[in-house]
Amino acid sequence: MIPLIQNFKTFVLADGDFPCHAIPCAFLKNADRIICCDGATEKLLHFGMNPDYIVGDLDSISNELKTRFSPILFPYPDQETNDLTKSIHFCIEHGWTEITILGATGKREDHTMGNLALLTDYAESTQVQLLTDYGVFVPQLKSSVYESYAGQQVSIFSLTASTLFTTRNLVYPIENRVLTSWWQGTLNESLAGCFTVETTGGKSLVFREYQKY
Amino acid sequence: MIPLIQNFKTFVLADGDFPCHAIPCAFLKNADRIICCDGATEKLLHFGMNPDYIVGDLDSISNELKTRFSPILFPYPDQETNDLTKSIHFCIEHGWTEITILGATGKREDHTMGNLALLTDYAESTQVQLLTDYGVFVPQLKSSVYESYAGQQVSIFSLTASTLFTTRNLVYPIENRVLTSWWQGTLNESLAGCFTVETTGGKSLVFREYQKY
Repeated sequence: MIPLIQNFKTFVLADGDFPCHAIPCAFLKNADRIICCDGATEKLLHFGMNPDYIVGDLDSISNELKTRFSPILFPYPDQETNDLTKSIHFCIEHGWTEITILGATGKREDHTMGNLALLTDYAESTQVQLLTDYGVFVPQLKSSVYESYAGQQVSIFSLTASTLFTTRNLVYPIENRVLTSWWQGTLNESLAGCFTVETTGGKSLVFREYQKY
Repeated sequence: MIPLIQNFKTFVLADGDFPCHAIPCAFLKNADRIICCDGATEKLLHFGMNPDYIVGDLDSISNELKTRFSPILFPYPDQETNDLTKSIHFCIEHGWTEITILGATGKREDHTMGNLALLTDYAESTQVQLLTDYGVFVPQLKSSVYESYAGQQVSIFSLTASTLFTTRNLVYPIENRVLTSWWQGTLNESLAGCFTVETTGGKSLVFREYQKY
């Protein structure tokens, strides 16, 4: 069963909205190491923590910070990938394959959509979870059981055209069905302490909201 | 050529983040009519404007506002669609088929993704554009030319698996290629006053950022 939040202590901080929800902030404070995507460095410093590594094309970090952090600066000039992907590659090269991603949503929506879709690519060589201020996204490459609570909002996104989905323990059950548009698996709700998303392979994303108090 | 912002004066205000960028706010002030999705009513009042119609399942609007606006309240009990889709159907029923959508992003990212994908469904019976605080999304069902400026950030999202894309006047040209993941068409940039996105049909989305001043 995949817990709501997995204890993945390598953090990649992207340059979208810095988290303000208590849950992602608390996990960040317990990080073993933090890899900052370029311009996210300033936000992390403002939060009161220091980066362990700074990765990216380094076009959105000040010269002052570049000098201050020169020993931990890792420029990746690749034009084909974004700074988040560069940071994930950096983690893989170092053997850190249990990764929590923060700050990858908010700001420009096209970046948000791209970053979310990238999760399923990362899942081929790492374990990743992406925490936002609202909940958790995880990539799914095979049928999985998810920790949940009754009433939890759940959304499922299919990123491959022919994948068949079957769910258990959701208010609006899906039975051996292709999800042809990203809205079709949204606005679902868990009935119990866990739910199941069975697929015929392919790539998908599962979103679970945080518990409300 | 599709202008950066089209003069569509029927506004649907969804219950995500209320716009704070000057461009969507200025257009909202010139609306012919505003259809509020349920809980968005309060935000519009706070902005200093009144809704013309309130549509949705009406579970997130206060009893006080329900009483005050009872003559313009249109409950849609349908469980199968979200409040944004209910509002679009309401517009179609009234013959208003040139629609600007605001407030449909921000807040929960799964809602954002669902709402963006829905644009291409709406495009089958309406003309829609979706303004955010960063730029404009339009659905594309056929090859189109877009108004632009040199240096404008552009992202293209394919929502159908086999669609082939060819672009003109973008920094990273796409030549007769399938976009198999949502990140593949992101982070592009216009070279000139217009660019072209040619497709073999299917459904796609085009994002253009606002001009920076």
